[in-house]
Amino acid sequence: MTFDDKKGLQIALDQAKKSYSEGGIPIGSCIISSDGTVLGQGHNERIQKHSAILHGEMSALENAGRLPGKTYKDCTIYTTLSPCSMCTGAILLYGFKRVVMGENVNFLGNEKLLIENGVEVVNLNDQECIDLMAKFIKEKPQDWNEDIGE
Amino acid sequence: MTFDDKKGLQIALDQAKKSYSEGGIPIGSCIISSDGTVLGQGHNERIQKHSAILHGEMSALENAGRLPGKTYKDCTIYTTLSPCSMCTGAILLYGFKRVVMGENVNFLGNEKLLIENGVEVVNLNDQECIDLMAKFIKEKPQDWNEDIGE
Repeated sequence: MTFDDKKGLQIALDQAKKSYSEGGIPIGSCIISSDGTVLGQGHNERIQKHSAILHGEMSALENAGRLPGKTYKDCTIYTTLSPCSMCTGAILLYGFKRVVMGENVNFLGNEKLLIENGVEVVNLNDQECIDLMAKFIKEKPQDWNEDIGE
Repeated sequence: MTFDDKKGLQIALDQAKKSYSEGGIPIGSCIISSDGTVLGQGHNERIQKHSAILHGEMSALENAGRLPGKTYKDCTIYTTLSPCSMCTGAILLYGFKRVVMGENVNFLGNEKLLIENGVEVVNLNDQECIDLMAKFIKEKPQDWNEDIGE
């Protein structure tokens, strides 16, 4: 049975909301194998852990721990927002077969590079993801700009 | 005064040796601003911290802490080995102007993507970096393959 993409995005969105409630950047992510097992989940930790590298997808990867390379090839990574260059690179390093994102209205990553490398990219264009991210950017533009390297 | 590239690579190589002495993957990195200030340094932590994301360059970024985006634009990132997709993506996210690597004999990352995005890429083709990495790959091929997602 294929894991339902909306359920995967909901786990990522719950992580994003948790980050927002902590005063952090509301981007969440999870990694789910084709049998529906959640291997890792996490959220952006720039504010909470003073981290330059723990974006949502990177946190999910880190929380999944050390896994054999072949594990990722069978997985979908869910993220509330279009992946930035760093997270795109991590997705390519580990060879994820699919990326499912909540939205790319507030930020458009290098989706083209993913597609060119054979990754299936799905955008669920989720209004709740769009609204949460937009709210944060309006409230704390300096934190958001710092996170995307501006 | 421009910071000497060989000195920058030496700091990265010392980090790689430290990692090797800990039983870890011997890849080191440092971030140096144009006035010669070392803003961060680190080494691969896959073995030591059971980390899926702390490659050498990522550790240097993390150890440099939260910095304004403009800081990186004036920096060179040194690494003992050609950067993988993830580290390449991080370098692009933060807009480093230069990447100086020890070698790309043992692993060739996506240097083309860096160059296409206007990053200056310098390969010092350092024999000590080549030999240390080759020794580790021969001794622990499974750890090395896991690190590069194979």
